[in-house]
Amino acid sequence: MAFKIIASATYLPKTIITSSELDQRLNLKPGTCSKRYGVQHRHFANFEETAVFMGCEAIKQALIDANLALMDIDLLISASGTSHQVLPYNGASILAELKDSHPIASMDINSSCLSFLSALDMAHCAIDSGRYKRILIVTSEVARVGITYDNPEISSLFADGAAAFILEADSESQGLVSSLFKTYPQGYEHCQIRSGGSFLHPSKTDLQTMVEGSYFYMDGKKVFKQVATLIKGFLDEGLQKAKLNKQDIQYIVPHQASHLGLKHIESRLGFKTQPMINIISTMGNQIAASIPIALDHLIKNHKPEKGSKILIIGSGAGLSLGMGVLSL
Amino acid sequence: MAFKIIASATYLPKTIITSSELDQRLNLKPGTCSKRYGVQHRHFANFEETAVFMGCEAIKQALIDANLALMDIDLLISASGTSHQVLPYNGASILAELKDSHPIASMDINSSCLSFLSALDMAHCAIDSGRYKRILIVTSEVARVGITYDNPEISSLFADGAAAFILEADSESQGLVSSLFKTYPQGYEHCQIRSGGSFLHPSKTDLQTMVEGSYFYMDGKKVFKQVATLIKGFLDEGLQKAKLNKQDIQYIVPHQASHLGLKHIESRLGFKTQPMINIISTMGNQIAASIPIALDHLIKNHKPEKGSKILIIGSGAGLSLGMGVLSL
Repeated sequence: MAFKIIASATYLPKTIITSSELDQRLNLKPGTCSKRYGVQHRHFANFEETAVFMGCEAIKQALIDANLALMDIDLLISASGTSHQVLPYNGASILAELKDSHPIASMDINSSCLSFLSALDMAHCAIDSGRYKRILIVTSEVARVGITYDNPEISSLFADGAAAFILEADSESQGLVSSLFKTYPQGYEHCQIRSGGSFLHPSKTDLQTMVEGSYFYMDGKKVFKQVATLIKGFLDEGLQKAKLNKQDIQYIVPHQASHLGLKHIESRLGFKTQPMINIISTMGNQIAASIPIALDHLIKNHKPEKGSKILIIGSGAGLSLGMGVLSL
Repeated sequence: MAFKIIASATYLPKTIITSSELDQRLNLKPGTCSKRYGVQHRHFANFEETAVFMGCEAIKQALIDANLALMDIDLLISASGTSHQVLPYNGASILAELKDSHPIASMDINSSCLSFLSALDMAHCAIDSGRYKRILIVTSEVARVGITYDNPEISSLFADGAAAFILEADSESQGLVSSLFKTYPQGYEHCQIRSGGSFLHPSKTDLQTMVEGSYFYMDGKKVFKQVATLIKGFLDEGLQKAKLNKQDIQYIVPHQASHLGLKHIESRLGFKTQPMINIISTMGNQIAASIPIALDHLIKNHKPEKGSKILIIGSGAGLSLGMGVLSL
């Protein structure tokens, strides 16, 4: 038994920062963010648009679209690369904000930018095993809280947002046909937020170190180089595992890692005719929310036919690579 | 296809704090922690014993016991209620510390104190679906970093530790026969660590609020009352879902929530003859590590026969209840 997607929704923060405004904030020559980093605009969450708030907005819209109430959901998986707070987990925080007294199962799944794909994989297995019939996956990221204006490449890249998907057991669907994930520990140092956990905790770390560690660090060049080296072999292995050829794929949904990364992946993966979702000019990199927002964009804008095979592929802090073939 | 457990291991911090030492630290009359809170001693992690370090130690021991290398594992699930740092996820941090260059799949699963049980449930489904053949689940908690000495009940309760389990696909085993999870948002406020995420971040919160929010808050009485009200109906529903009676259960592994909580659960659940693992006098509440450490204790000390059915049951911040029936 596999699943079909019965609803999907995106929540984008109301505040839109144009590339010109970004140029100003970054003290760059007018037009730089547009030309060099491919920015049209970015959505930045305001103070009230917490990760929990945005996740709930996406959930409410998905439930309306599916004509369901929260009590019709068997399991809520929150799949984000960052946390709202340390304890309880994001899923519990979201359920508390939804204020629905009917208790349902919940958990978080986190594999940084690949969290949604990991959750989709586990949801596929849980539905296949008969554990659950209807699973809601929500991803919500406030990436901007950890971004400063001292690195134009990073500052112009990241943005906030949330998405929610509702999956339902369906004997005529194939769900996530196949998946492949690999974590390459050699790339661990390239992308981090070091504070927030038990490691750099105020009870044992000076405040300056802890505050500094609360901000996002990325060596974009090293990430790019590692992904560029690995991605083609990884895709080939994943397709072989799925017993599929490139021609079997109708659409590609990559993680919106970076302007340059997407251009590279487009040429490197070697898909010649299939549309690849590239919404980085307006969405930026929304950490784990990028993949589901791009998938929601595909569903709404390209209206793929029933049975279409979508390659979801990307990298995440870890460094992890992940891919899955979703049959709609 | 279900799984069998082929190895399990526990890592306990080297520093042991006796109940007398706890009395002193808490300015209590000698004997109070022993008499009132049932403490014999507690394991406290030192500076070097990070969550990642302890998790790796438990993994290394489990791999030795199973006579396997990390490259023999298909998927590593890190299942803790707290994080080592915000990004990347715990599983990637652990793989980086293990310094094994062979890439494997990894992810975190978090449902606070029930994280291990949630991971066991997803691992069951993933093996059942044929996605993975060998899964390693590791849980590691440095609970003490967030505990102060101003609340005797909480200070005497929490402790640190880690455990690792290796599961292998096995057609003659039943794995986690059944599971039930429910999150009751009414109990969300009772148990929290509010900082560390995007909500109380230094870019938008004053440092004092952020530091205060880095410490563990629990209203033990409210948690106890909510769990006491719900647990019996929850167990009945879970057993009914599993199509099992109480007599079908040979052992009970509860989350080591509290001295009083365990006494209550023992009488409330109504198992008359079956052993219930109660190691709280020496282990305390190790957040998500409690359940796997208690399960490892059962396996090592009670030597349950093949096919024994073990009820795993507990509560976690959320407030979430979870139960599963594990067939060895």
